Amino acid sequence: MGGRISPSIMCADFRNLETTIRALERARVDYLHVDIMDGSFVPNFTLGPDFMNSVREMTDIPFDIHLMINRPEDFLPIFTIRPGDIVTVHQEATIHLQRTLQRIRDTGAKVSVALNPATPIYTLDDILDDIDIVLIMTVNPGFAGQKLVPATLGKIQKLKQYLQQSGHSHIEIEVDGNVSCENAQKMRLAGADIFVAGTSSIFKKDQDLYELTEKFREYIT
Amino acid sequence: MGGRISPSIMCADFRNLETTIRALERARVDYLHVDIMDGSFVPNFTLGPDFMNSVREMTDIPFDIHLMINRPEDFLPIFTIRPGDIVTVHQEATIHLQRTLQRIRDTGAKVSVALNPATPIYTLDDILDDIDIVLIMTVNPGFAGQKLVPATLGKIQKLKQYLQQSGHSHIEIEVDGNVSCENAQKMRLAGADIFVAGTSSIFKKDQDLYELTEKFREYIT
Amino acid sequence: MGGRISPSIMCADFRNLETTIRALERARVDYLHVDIMDGSFVPNFTLGPDFMNSVREMTDIPFDIHLMINRPEDFLPIFTIRPGDIVTVHQEATIHLQRTLQRIRDTGAKVSVALNPATPIYTLDDILDDIDIVLIMTVNPGFAGQKLVPATLGKIQKLKQYLQQSGHSHIEIEVDGNVSCENAQKMRLAGADIFVAGTSSIFKKDQDLYELTEKFREYIT
Amino acid sequence: MGGRISPSIMCADFRNLETTIRALERARVDYLHVDIMDGSFVPNFTLGPDFMNSVREMTDIPFDIHLMINRPEDFLPIFTIRPGDIVTVHQEATIHLQRTLQRIRDTGAKVSVALNPATPIYTLDDILDDIDIVLIMTVNPGFAGQKLVPATLGKIQKLKQYLQQSGHSHIEIEVDGNVSCENAQKMRLAGADIFVAGTSSIFKKDQDLYELTEKFREYIT
Amino acid sequence: MGGRISPSIMCADFRNLETTIRALERARVDYLHVDIMDGSFVPNFTLGPDFMNSVREMTDIPFDIHLMINRPEDFLPIFTIRPGDIVTVHQEATIHLQRTLQRIRDTGAKVSVALNPATPIYTLDDILDDIDIVLIMTVNPGFAGQKLVPATLGKIQKLKQYLQQSGHSHIEIEVDGNVSCENAQKMRLAGADIFVAGTSSIFKKDQDLYELTEKFREYIT
Amino acid sequence: MGGRISPSIMCADFRNLETTIRALERARVDYLHVDIMDGSFVPNFTLGPDFMNSVREMTDIPFDIHLMINRPEDFLPIFTIRPGDIVTVHQEATIHLQRTLQRIRDTGAKVSVALNPATPIYTLDDILDDIDIVLIMTVNPGFAGQKLVPATLGKIQKLKQYLQQSGHSHIEIEVDGNVSCENAQKMRLAGADIFVAGTSSIFKKDQDLYELTEKFREYIT
Repeated sequence: MGGRISPSIMCADFRNLETTIRALERARVDYLHVDIMDGSFVPNFTLGPDFMNSVREMTDIPFDIHLMINRPEDFLPIFTIRPGDIVTVHQEATIHLQRTLQRIRDTGAKVSVALNPATPIYTLDDILDDIDIVLIMTVNPGFAGQKLVPATLGKIQKLKQYLQQSGHSHIEIEVDGNVSCENAQKMRLAGADIFVAGTSSIFKKDQDLYELTEKFREYIT
Repeated sequence: MGGRISPSIMCADFRNLETTIRALERARVDYLHVDIMDGSFVPNFTLGPDFMNSVREMTDIPFDIHLMINRPEDFLPIFTIRPGDIVTVHQEATIHLQRTLQRIRDTGAKVSVALNPATPIYTLDDILDDIDIVLIMTVNPGFAGQKLVPATLGKIQKLKQYLQQSGHSHIEIEVDGNVSCENAQKMRLAGADIFVAGTSSIFKKDQDLYELTEKFREYIT
Repeated sequence: MGGRISPSIMCADFRNLETTIRALERARVDYLHVDIMDGSFVPNFTLGPDFMNSVREMTDIPFDIHLMINRPEDFLPIFTIRPGDIVTVHQEATIHLQRTLQRIRDTGAKVSVALNPATPIYTLDDILDDIDIVLIMTVNPGFAGQKLVPATLGKIQKLKQYLQQSGHSHIEIEVDGNVSCENAQKMRLAGADIFVAGTSSIFKKDQDLYELTEKFREYIT
Repeated sequence: MGGRISPSIMCADFRNLETTIRALERARVDYLHVDIMDGSFVPNFTLGPDFMNSVREMTDIPFDIHLMINRPEDFLPIFTIRPGDIVTVHQEATIHLQRTLQRIRDTGAKVSVALNPATPIYTLDDILDDIDIVLIMTVNPGFAGQKLVPATLGKIQKLKQYLQQSGHSHIEIEVDGNVSCENAQKMRLAGADIFVAGTSSIFKKDQDLYELTEKFREYIT
Repeated sequence: MGGRISPSIMCADFRNLETTIRALERARVDYLHVDIMDGSFVPNFTLGPDFMNSVREMTDIPFDIHLMINRPEDFLPIFTIRPGDIVTVHQEATIHLQRTLQRIRDTGAKVSVALNPATPIYTLDDILDDIDIVLIMTVNPGFAGQKLVPATLGKIQKLKQYLQQSGHSHIEIEVDGNVSCENAQKMRLAGADIFVAGTSSIFKKDQDLYELTEKFREYIT
Repeated sequence: MGGRISPSIMCADFRNLETTIRALERARVDYLHVDIMDGSFVPNFTLGPDFMNSVREMTDIPFDIHLMINRPEDFLPIFTIRPGDIVTVHQEATIHLQRTLQRIRDTGAKVSVALNPATPIYTLDDILDDIDIVLIMTVNPGFAGQKLVPATLGKIQKLKQYLQQSGHSHIEIEVDGNVSCENAQKMRLAGADIFVAGTSSIFKKDQDLYELTEKFREYIT
């Protein structure tokens, strides 16, 4: 199976969101990546549940909900989560990670854990049975338009091996941060399965979203 | 001068934001009210700087930026603030309120302080020289669609008197929370000048935004 | 109506709680005062919901639940609250005081707000319509066996006048902290209605709880 | 030596604690497990120092004090700790873990570190010389009556090997969370030494505490 | 009695502190003002207990310890406090203000409460019996070299009246922030008793500390 | 190359700092170690940017800035950092460690990460490309004059091997905490390169700083 695409809705043109979403549907993207920020886990703010509910009415593309917030377990109830969605929480965001993952599992969504660039892979040692996806941050979270942290390419590869050696090769790898066509290709080779696509690949001013998405797909097949 | 209208962009139809904004322009609204939430000052998330910058490209209506966040002084730099905008911080959100207000003043924006329903008016005693607007929360902040806290109507009146008696009658009063046509009329009588309009007045499913806004204006003239 | 008694269960003999509770029932106390502490709002820990549920099975005396915890609104759901109980939250513990009081009201319990010794009465200005009781801390909260803060006697009197002048004379005054027989008498004269009884009055080693309670009542009639 | 039993006092019948404690003494339990919660490290509250001091007067069974609180180093002084007690702090609760362990050591108590289900064993790498016991949480901490996290059985085994290979086979393993007779047997096989016994084993409504404890012992010998 | 001088040691020339202190002794200053910052109550750091102990060995001038830190009650034990010193805590820094003041009183030091520019005077209503000094911040705390907040001059006057009318005219007023000779003169007229002298008055590069201090005194006599 | 010396300025005689610094210059120390504390990451306070700027005017010895503060990324801008300085942040102090290290790199300073005694070496797995120095805390941070944590000697050795095996043998090892002559010798053998010298080696009352420093150097050559 080829790599899957999760366009970051934060980078969309909000002028006419319906047009944007129709283009993404035509390009058969797999998820809509939604970043939620709290100003504390990351020093920025983005979108929230009301906005998400509004987008739900426009499309059936599953959501890829990326919670860049502290104590995510306290906030799961304010989000409308559907079976087939991905819900990602950060390893660094809670000391009750297993409980949080279990609660996501109970919603029917796919369970994903994100690692900041400095967070070691071995922090996942005791939750591999609870997760479907590991999201490798390839930049430090909080802002669009940042430069790739070079060491994260090797980290994807290391993670791939770690998952295979521990008997969890079914766990998928998602990448988020400066996923340009060029970088995506390298990440794909290193083992990435799901690609968050933002301003460095498919959302470019005055360029066609559908075409850029189709082109992006070629790099991750 | 009649009451002014500040439609809450959080309640807009995100399907086609440009159409929404054109309707608000035609209805000559005075501000676009943008709620920013951090999950800590209030237990919810809404919108952020990227979204706001995107809306800026669509219209010249000034922004009425309502920071429902802790330590707002730390986050002012991530927002694009223009002269003519309103920037509102909460009295309860920072122990360095005067410094925060001064920094807003320095951007050229109008300076506004919000009070939660339980926060006494006298907390403003020593910052009246620093502000242009007091925002009275008429519900507890964090969610759309709540019921009016009845005592807040009397609070508007009390504030009006307090401002006049202290020689600050030029300070305007803004109201936010369940500002329906009926409630707006009572708030206007009590002394309110600026009205945050949301789902209880102008944003109603399958009804015309322009016409509801025009009708709303009649209640606050 | 005479003063009412709310024995502090934290001071009870845990050896045989049922005997203690039978004695309090015989002495017709009005409430069982339960202190909940979080180590952060106050630097100590006491009891919790499991313990309270266990006591509920022993008696029908209403509870007087004193939440010495931060963000009490987040914790209301873990307590079993019954109509007729008192639930007290601290003015200093939450910036969403009105919302918290409304949620207590919705449980059918009496709504009470506590003030630390240094917290001014005027902080209640805008919530008088939402409360049934004001609890005046007559020591700083967190520990049993402390000395009375002398200025709090005058504060009770000031509060009494404030409630009468603002047309809220139905609001009752509770006192908590070094409520010995002698102090209780002075507090009663100053305007107190409900008295938290602890180690300085009815819970004394090797003395009869029932008799001490009966004697205590004489000081507050 | 057979497995040792640490009944969770939080699950006791508070009606007549002395009777409970006499039954536990007759059943020769090794510890009384006391959970302390702060509403922040875990979203619940339980018991505190005053309650513990009261129990101390009833029995000489050593305490097994489980601090489910943040910054435990700040709170050690409010507890009466005796040589022979166990004091457990969580690896996730403090960045000054070694200092905290040293302070426990100085009281003469046994030093124990607890790991939440998601916390890797390798976090103990540099404190093995400082500890006597590792407590493996077999549910997520905060509430009685939860289901076992299945992966924690393997974690006990992994920990046993890790301790042996690093030359620390004298360190004992304690387990806490859904320690039913059945689960206890599996945990014993995996390497557990001390068993926190609660509502799933010895504290059952209308059943004899002494007999259930004697029966429980058979599963861990 | 003339106004008293409390030079801010943070502004001193650290090259040769003994020379500085001798000059201040010759100029008969009344206190050495020491700012302690925690990066959280104010966004800066300054000095600490070790430094202070070192200065104690050089001089007998009493210290005027200004704790710009959260939860000052937790940190009092790390400071060496002597009878005759002033210890100042901020009203905004603790919810247990009365307890904190009582603990300062117990050391024998003078008890002082500071108010940020936006903090109302009425917050002192219930602690007037516990204090010797009110410190009015005339800039927002955290940095040297800021501009006077103009409204604070009126605040000094208002405070003076408030203290007289409430029968506490023995309480002294200290001012801190841009206390230049000119401003000091106005503050003196408004009612200030103790003046924190920093870079805008006595500590000026290449100018004589002794002479500037003597000159400063003329403005506050 | 022999071991390098970084005297802790916090331990200096503040009476006449210039004399102290001249002695250190004569003894050709390599750095001046400056501890910054926030009362929260560690329960103490020390020095700050103003003090550091003052010392900068006295000497060109590079600074070795040890940030014992939470969220160091937020505070980097208040420090004057020069190429050639070392800036150390704690692994335990931020969840955005890679971003923080990158920002230090951008100032031209050497990038250093500190580990508390209980913090495993493996937490460095994914940031080895970003650092120049690892600082091993050999006591728990916060106070001068503490006893060595014995296990940290082995930790230095383990770190040395880890760095060599991962191809990062150019990364240097710094040690901080009870670095007496005797301990320094053992630390040198274990692999340490840079030694923070305080009250247990070169700063001793009534002894010559220059001579003690020269003597200390012999133990680390």
